[in-house]
Parts: sequence; C-alpha cells; structure tokens
Amino acid sequence: MKIAVLGTGFAGRTVAAGLAKLGHEVVIGTRDPHATLARTEPGAMGTPPFAQWRAQHVDVALAAYPEAASAAEIIVNLTNGQGSIDALTAAGAENLAGKILIDIANPLDLSQGFPPSLKPVNTDSLGEQIQRAFPEARVVKTLNNMQSGLIADPGRVAGGEHSVFVSGNDAAAKSAVTSLLQSLGHRDVIDLGDITTARGPEMMMPVWLRIFTALGTPDFNFKIVR
Amino acid sequence: MKIAVLGTGFAGRTVAAGLAKLGHEVVIGTRDPHATLARTEPGAMGTPPFAQWRAQHVDVALAAYPEAASAAEIIVNLTNGQGSIDALTAAGAENLAGKILIDIANPLDLSQGFPPSLKPVNTDSLGEQIQRAFPEARVVKTLNNMQSGLIADPGRVAGGEHSVFVSGNDAAAKSAVTSLLQSLGHRDVIDLGDITTARGPEMMMPVWLRIFTALGTPDFNFKIVR
Repeated sequence: MKIAVLGTGFAGRTVAAGLAKLGHEVVIGTRDPHATLARTEPGAMGTPPFAQWRAQHVDVALAAYPEAASAAEIIVNLTNGQGSIDALTAAGAENLAGKILIDIANPLDLSQGFPPSLKPVNTDSLGEQIQRAFPEARVVKTLNNMQSGLIADPGRVAGGEHSVFVSGNDAAAKSAVTSLLQSLGHRDVIDLGDITTARGPEMMMPVWLRIFTALGTPDFNFKIVR
Repeated sequence: MKIAVLGTGFAGRTVAAGLAKLGHEVVIGTRDPHATLARTEPGAMGTPPFAQWRAQHVDVALAAYPEAASAAEIIVNLTNGQGSIDALTAAGAENLAGKILIDIANPLDLSQGFPPSLKPVNTDSLGEQIQRAFPEARVVKTLNNMQSGLIADPGRVAGGEHSVFVSGNDAAAKSAVTSLLQSLGHRDVIDLGDITTARGPEMMMPVWLRIFTALGTPDFNFKIVR
C-alpha cells in the first residue's frame, strides 16, 4: 500500500523503514524537504541528520506534507504531538478526507521540563482533537505507548508477546489497521472502542516514562494478561 | 502485623480478608461502625450489606477510623478517592505519623458520569495529595490499577505473571511494602521512584476501564514484558 509517514524524527524514520521492509510504498512527509535534507547537525537525542539516514534507506521517499498525503492511501502521524494539528493542516484536509489516518503521536508538554505532562488530557485526547479537526479522516489511535523500534519489530521484546490498542469511530478503518498491525507481527490487538478511548493509551505515557527510567531501557511493553 | 484497612466497600473487604488469611491482625476502619453494621441494603454494584459479609469473616474486626488507625502498624487506604483526604483526616494525622500508609485508592471523578475522569491528574496525584496532607506518614502508592480480587490473590490471572508498581519517598517503607506484596504472591514489583511517580499508575485507570469494557471481565492485569 501507499503509506505516508508524517514526521522525520527517530520514530518516523523507524516506522517508515519497517513499513518499506514489508513491501509498502512509503514516503516520509515533512514541512520543507529541502530544509530537512540540508540539515547537517544531529537531531534531538543524537539522531543523525536526515540526509545521512536517507542515504541508507533509498526505498523511502521524502516529500512535502501535501504531496506525501495526497498520494497516500494511509497516513501515519508521527509528528510532535504539540504540533500535530498544524502539520496535518499543512498536509491539507482534502488530502486526508476518506483516508485512514493512523495517529501514533503523544501530546507531551515539555514546557515545564521532565517529566512532561500531557496536553490535552483526561477529558480530551490528541486522537479526538485530530478527529474533530479532520472529520472526514478515518482516525485510528494506536501504537503510541511503546518505543518506535517495537512498532515495526514487536518480536524484539518477549518474542512479541505483548499488546497493542486501537481506538476509532470507523470500524472498517480499525479492521484495516488491525490487519496492518498483524502484518508487522502484533498478535494481541485490543479494540478499546471509539476515538474517545484514545485517552486511555495516551494517559499511559506518564507510567511509560517512569518504567523507562526504572528499567533503564525502552525495550519493554505492556502485555494485558487474562 | 496489625493492619488497618480503611474502607468498607468491595475492595476494602477483599483486601482485608486476603490479609487476614495470611495471618495478619486486620481491622476495617469506617466513619461510624454502628451505621456501617446497621445498613441492610446492598451497596454500590450489589455488594451485600457489611454485617452480612462480616458474619462470614469473624477474623476481621471493625472500628472507627481513629481507633483502627491508632492500633495499626500499617494503614491501607481503600476509601473512595474523592473522600480519602477527609477519611484520613478523620483517622487523625497523629495516628498515621511514622507509619506506612499504603494508598490503593483512585481519584475517580464520576460527577460527569461514565467513564469517570481523574481529579487530580497530570501534574498531581492522590498519592501526592495524601503525602502532602500527612507529611509524617510514609505513603506508598501501589496496587491501584488492578481489580481488588487480584490484590490478595494475584494467581487467579495468568498464574500471577503480571506486574505491580510502588511509588513513595521512603525507601524503607517501599521495601516493607514490597515484602508484603511478595507475601501476597506478587512476583514482579517495579519501584517507579518517589511519590510523584504515583501519577503514572493513577493515570492508567482510564485505559483499565476501557480494557474492562472491551474484555468484559475485570480479571486481567498489566504485565511489563522486557
């Protein structure tokens, strides 16, 4: 399938490479491709400049948000949560309409330092904000509460024996996303309900960050045992 | 050990019975023991009247909050989260001072119906509120994100293969609580850090409630696989 991954950070790159490996036609969307490729300094958390990464991943294209989104059947939001609405607005509502929009971003607010708080939280979620802002997109919230390496390679922890949630208003979209998740190796996909249930997995981020600190590694995940 | 469980609801009863079974001297604390025993109607969610439960659990005592707390070495908070500070105030700060206070309550706000939101949330937690209100108590937040039947009998789900968190400022208190958890059968106890980390497990309640709905049973738990 033609998939646009919005976001050039570590998570966007990792997910784009994983999807390309499965044979999907993947393009990374960014605000300004020339600026993205011109950067020569490492990004946040020491990620290499995009052009350097791109040289090793020639199967992944790069395009401006609207171009990437308009050509795609599925759009994946991996932009910074506080800037996601802006990025999707730049991609163009008309380029999202009728399409599956997989929202993996987290609304982390780092303005007060570490640990971040969430904004929105509790009575709203980023997933809901995106669905409200783009009512014709078929938003599915998923995969936000695990490190990005696990998204495309769940087997790297506990042989893939862990769980992933989906939230969304469109049953067919959730079903298609569930199939995509299974093709990536996710075996336990739990449908939480409509898009308001995205609050749950987003609100797992505070404990995720604390477990990360306690264990000293992001290589863990939540398994719902029953 | 002498343990006071504050709260006469389903969770308080279940935990009190489980601790008594292990040989601890357990008293349930309530605001007005006479009123608690005089009730003849079922409680919320169809729990039988307390006197009826008590007749089958003669090894568990009943006392007013201050009496229960003053005689105890460990106090367990299983009161309604929105009323916990009031209940603990009624128990008396002098009866909590220097003692381990295990906080299992959740600050669920049902004023807007189901699903509840949390109050406090995000930049504060009930665990922190309790620690601030009773600075001489040694507060340990734990066990709040699983159904109460699992607290005292973790083996009833997945042979006990799941995880429990502890948060608190007092290392010795966390160590003692970890031993108590292990004596109940909890094998994977993860120390998240100081009491501010209680935000994490409290903010897992929204997803807990949605998983409960999705699975149709509260008999599940989170296992941190790594």
